[in-house]
Amino acid sequence: MLLTDLIARFGALIESVEGAEGPKHVVRVNTLEAAASDEFSFLANPKYRNGLVATRAGVVAIRRTDFDTLEQAAQTARAFLICRDPYLLFARVAQTLDVQPRPQGGIAPGAVVDRDAHIDPTASIASGAVIDAGAKIGANVVVGALCTIGRDTVLEEGVWLYPRVSIYHGCRIGARTIIHSGAVIGADGFGYANDAGRWIKIPQTGGVRIGEDCEIGANTTIDRGALQDTVIGNGVKLDNQIQIAHNVSIGDDSALAGCVGVAGSAVIGKRVQIAGAANILGHLSIADGTVISVASVVTSSIDKPGFYSGTWPLQAHEDWEKSAVLVRRLDKMRDELRSLRTELNALKSTSGGQ
Amino acid sequence: MLLTDLIARFGALIESVEGAEGPKHVVRVNTLEAAASDEFSFLANPKYRNGLVATRAGVVAIRRTDFDTLEQAAQTARAFLICRDPYLLFARVAQTLDVQPRPQGGIAPGAVVDRDAHIDPTASIASGAVIDAGAKIGANVVVGALCTIGRDTVLEEGVWLYPRVSIYHGCRIGARTIIHSGAVIGADGFGYANDAGRWIKIPQTGGVRIGEDCEIGANTTIDRGALQDTVIGNGVKLDNQIQIAHNVSIGDDSALAGCVGVAGSAVIGKRVQIAGAANILGHLSIADGTVISVASVVTSSIDKPGFYSGTWPLQAHEDWEKSAVLVRRLDKMRDELRSLRTELNALKSTSGGQ
Amino acid sequence: MLLTDLIARFGALIESVEGAEGPKHVVRVNTLEAAASDEFSFLANPKYRNGLVATRAGVVAIRRTDFDTLEQAAQTARAFLICRDPYLLFARVAQTLDVQPRPQGGIAPGAVVDRDAHIDPTASIASGAVIDAGAKIGANVVVGALCTIGRDTVLEEGVWLYPRVSIYHGCRIGARTIIHSGAVIGADGFGYANDAGRWIKIPQTGGVRIGEDCEIGANTTIDRGALQDTVIGNGVKLDNQIQIAHNVSIGDDSALAGCVGVAGSAVIGKRVQIAGAANILGHLSIADGTVISVASVVTSSIDKPGFYSGTWPLQAHEDWEKSAVLVRRLDKMRDELRSLRTELNALKSTSGGQ
Repeated sequence: MLLTDLIARFGALIESVEGAEGPKHVVRVNTLEAAASDEFSFLANPKYRNGLVATRAGVVAIRRTDFDTLEQAAQTARAFLICRDPYLLFARVAQTLDVQPRPQGGIAPGAVVDRDAHIDPTASIASGAVIDAGAKIGANVVVGALCTIGRDTVLEEGVWLYPRVSIYHGCRIGARTIIHSGAVIGADGFGYANDAGRWIKIPQTGGVRIGEDCEIGANTTIDRGALQDTVIGNGVKLDNQIQIAHNVSIGDDSALAGCVGVAGSAVIGKRVQIAGAANILGHLSIADGTVISVASVVTSSIDKPGFYSGTWPLQAHEDWEKSAVLVRRLDKMRDELRSLRTELNALKSTSGGQ
Repeated sequence: MLLTDLIARFGALIESVEGAEGPKHVVRVNTLEAAASDEFSFLANPKYRNGLVATRAGVVAIRRTDFDTLEQAAQTARAFLICRDPYLLFARVAQTLDVQPRPQGGIAPGAVVDRDAHIDPTASIASGAVIDAGAKIGANVVVGALCTIGRDTVLEEGVWLYPRVSIYHGCRIGARTIIHSGAVIGADGFGYANDAGRWIKIPQTGGVRIGEDCEIGANTTIDRGALQDTVIGNGVKLDNQIQIAHNVSIGDDSALAGCVGVAGSAVIGKRVQIAGAANILGHLSIADGTVISVASVVTSSIDKPGFYSGTWPLQAHEDWEKSAVLVRRLDKMRDELRSLRTELNALKSTSGGQ
Repeated sequence: MLLTDLIARFGALIESVEGAEGPKHVVRVNTLEAAASDEFSFLANPKYRNGLVATRAGVVAIRRTDFDTLEQAAQTARAFLICRDPYLLFARVAQTLDVQPRPQGGIAPGAVVDRDAHIDPTASIASGAVIDAGAKIGANVVVGALCTIGRDTVLEEGVWLYPRVSIYHGCRIGARTIIHSGAVIGADGFGYANDAGRWIKIPQTGGVRIGEDCEIGANTTIDRGALQDTVIGNGVKLDNQIQIAHNVSIGDDSALAGCVGVAGSAVIGKRVQIAGAANILGHLSIADGTVISVASVVTSSIDKPGFYSGTWPLQAHEDWEKSAVLVRRLDKMRDELRSLRTELNALKSTSGGQ
């Protein structure tokens, strides 16, 4: 891509162009360390500023303040695109230069498509995929090898399933949503009544609805609802190995990192960010914009957006052993504090009275 | 289904029928909120009592105390089935009304079945399933699309595998057990000896035995034993994304929620309940009937059944930072408490002596 | 196998042979409890010494100290192989006696292999496997049923993929590495820029490189790098359900137990051991030889190898409730301690002055 074309396309993100004229072509994005002279790189975190000295990148996206504090020689060594958010410009350029080939439309010979399924002629169904009756596969959808699509499930325009995704019956996946290998959408929620010690299964008759422009990571599971649907909003990003239980609702543009678990009927707001391995209990709600840190456990509703944490800080094992004993004796320590206070006050009043 | 037939069938669970005569037919179960006049609903948790006012459900299962405190108009607006456990009655009715079609018996053209496998003629083997030599597939078993069944593995009568389940060689799955997509049964346990820093694999020659009437969630993994089998009892329910290591034993009717991990050779009793993301260390035992709460870590045997917990309570991040610093200084706080006690006692005895 | 042959083969590990002459043949390894007279067993943990009395094993690997403290009758009841590390000798013998059959080379009729893929004639490609253009499958590789291998991915000599493994495009798996069912290698890393609240995907253009002699557990996921590769060293052992994020690097001979999560760009050294369900944050490094205990969270770099822990110790729920309240009030307790100290000191100086 010509640098001039790139500048023209993303002009709205670029404040100005500085430095050398740069390469005529930008062929790829790369790290400052590894970039060649026909590659595009960026400086988002000032702590990597040293990388600017040695980089061979032909074009670098950078903030005004970072550019201005460069030595003059560095300022003229390559083209700089000054912008408020270099990482965002990098993302946009990377998407433009990405060349992952889209499979051609059509049903591969080894795919097994029920005659009552509806496949748009522009959709691509790879070898070994199995598609049940009543399923609707929209325009430009990619169904990877060995995926399974249940009865009456709908994949809207542009959905991309990598190989080995399973979607049970009666689910709906919104336009342009990407789902990675091993993900399972619409398995039964974990619901049982107890009859004198034995578990009686509640048939899970709801479905799963996933919005547009979502991405679902590898081996992530999203269960179907018990009676009503499990609902994932638009633009939601779920990393790998996440478990979303039945009847959860997740608002638009929320992002959940790897290994997060969300229990049944939790209502997660919009633009919520949940770090890896955090767990959210069921039947609670989390306010829009809340941020939960790594491996924290949310046990009651969060009404006020903010940044919440809750993990034991790592210690050398022998130190942890002491802390672990004492945290279980906190009530005794508190009682002793109270006794000391009472006795000291008594003593002071006695002393004061002297 | 006729309401009268439903009452006849579940009479043992129903104390009495109250209110309006109700619809002739009950076609489906639903929530109080969403139910229509030919649908069945229930009130299990009194906090949802307000839902009773607006519901259009034709029949509602309810406890005597909840019914008696309804206004008279509400008591006569629909049929009420008075019972001790409305949720259990709901489960039984839901199972009765559930209409998930069972696949017809037979081997789909795209399935690959070794000629030395034994397939009951009433079993259904879907497209793309791969079944190895010596496997035995019992009566009325459903093997979903793209499942793999290893050498000499046995699926007893009525087992139901959703698409894309893998069971390694030499395992046994008990009658009527359900396994969801992506589950892997019988992969090698994680066992190595260490030879001067390098890991030497211990061949895992045990198998996995799963009892009757179990349910195994999506993407859950149960490893084969090192020498003896890994054993899951009857009626055990495992949610999604659970990891069961080699030589674990789980007693009948236990239930483990999503993302739980159980390390090697742990012995979990009967009717144990483990909440989501809890972790159980290896080579320990847990008494029958124990309950472990969310994300707790069990590091030693539990001999006395009870309800156990152990997670850091969520805090606003800036509060957590203070707590996290101080929990590591608990020994210093304890020492200071002791010093204060000693000094205060000394002072008191001096004061007392005055 | 003749016992004499076995002793000859592993002579370097054996200090001496004691006791009865033992069976002519050793056919299998087993536990002390279950072993028959033609089976090999071992005593690694002295706490299982009682097992020696009742065992019927024909040959037992044992430490000198454990042998010497046996009663004389027990010492002569069977053959003992005296060695420094009975568990290691057991591992070596078990590998020798393991008879898991290796599939014959060749491409099964139901496999789908792109004509531009390169398959070594000694490799075995099972039914339903799907191999894309440019993939290179080396000598003696086993590709299990229903695996998917992406464009240009390389499996070196002797790699063994169990059924239903997916490897995306452009990855490389080192010689003799074993990967279990459900594992996903090379899915996109979790990388987005944020544009006014919406997430903009960063194309993930790096790959995954896994070294030689590794083992990857069932349903484990290893994401491809954002720009550079995610790198797993030689001899690394990953258990089930592990999540390795983009651009992580793991040094040779490290071992991670089930359900561990490692966030992006973390650099884990050599011979690091991480217990189950621990979580490692991104952009940090962990020194060679570090040991992290179960469910601990590593939030900053560890420069000094050692044994680190950080989990709330399990408590009876009602005790935990008290501790959980108080851990959030640690700053108030600390303040009260300081007040008491100040006031006590003041009182002492007053008293002392009297």
